[in-house]
Amino acid sequence: MTPQRVTLITLGVADLDRAKAFYAALGWQPALSYEGVAFYQMQGAALALFGLTDLAADQGRSAGELGTGAMTLAQNFATEAEVDAAHALALAAGATSVKVPQKAEWGGYSGYYTDPDGHVWEVARNPFWPLAPDGSLSLPKP
Amino acid sequence: MTPQRVTLITLGVADLDRAKAFYAALGWQPALSYEGVAFYQMQGAALALFGLTDLAADQGRSAGELGTGAMTLAQNFATEAEVDAAHALALAAGATSVKVPQKAEWGGYSGYYTDPDGHVWEVARNPFWPLAPDGSLSLPKP
Repeated sequence: MTPQRVTLITLGVADLDRAKAFYAALGWQPALSYEGVAFYQMQGAALALFGLTDLAADQGRSAGELGTGAMTLAQNFATEAEVDAAHALALAAGATSVKVPQKAEWGGYSGYYTDPDGHVWEVARNPFWPLAPDGSLSLPKP
Repeated sequence: MTPQRVTLITLGVADLDRAKAFYAALGWQPALSYEGVAFYQMQGAALALFGLTDLAADQGRSAGELGTGAMTLAQNFATEAEVDAAHALALAAGATSVKVPQKAEWGGYSGYYTDPDGHVWEVARNPFWPLAPDGSLSLPKP
């Protein structure tokens, strides 16, 4: 079974500067900001703003194919084996694989599947973002 | 400013029984289940499965208009005034109002807006789901 947990919500955005300005106007401050992506700390989880085309590329799809996947939910795990198991379990449960878990350019290990309604879940190990024992995520200091 | 917080993620689903069976196969157990909606406890927040047409109706839109709004993010607040303020702040920041905050059929108070990329945020007061001082949500016992 997989934990009842969302570690990261990613919003695909057409214009990252515009999106960051919008959330800044709401009072949100990124904990981490890189070229092309910004991460915001929430209670036990994080929200990311990420370019739509980058998000599509990361899923191996075109931006037009994203559908509700223009917002994705991610579960982080401690090991690659747990990522593989979560992906396999989802397929066994009727999910459609979007990307078999594999080494990611950013140094982690990540796969994607869609649930029966097309909602996109990422399963990932991020060695730079260890989880607390309760499964909550605290973004590292930049 | 609004808190950097997502209280509730709602997945709009075409067939609630199919969706519940899928998440059950992943090992997820709803904390609360009603006619037409199921809620799952996560770390400090909740995930809901909710009929697509009901979700669209709740936003005053058709299912075809939902786009990425077929997955919505919600922020809960302690008072209706805070809900109004959060909605107004978002509009001032460039959001588009989908539904002005108003009394909801389920006994709370709720509004919707879309961010510049069309992602749907709900701002709500749910008198039945008080928040912890740290903003985290624990679903009540059924």
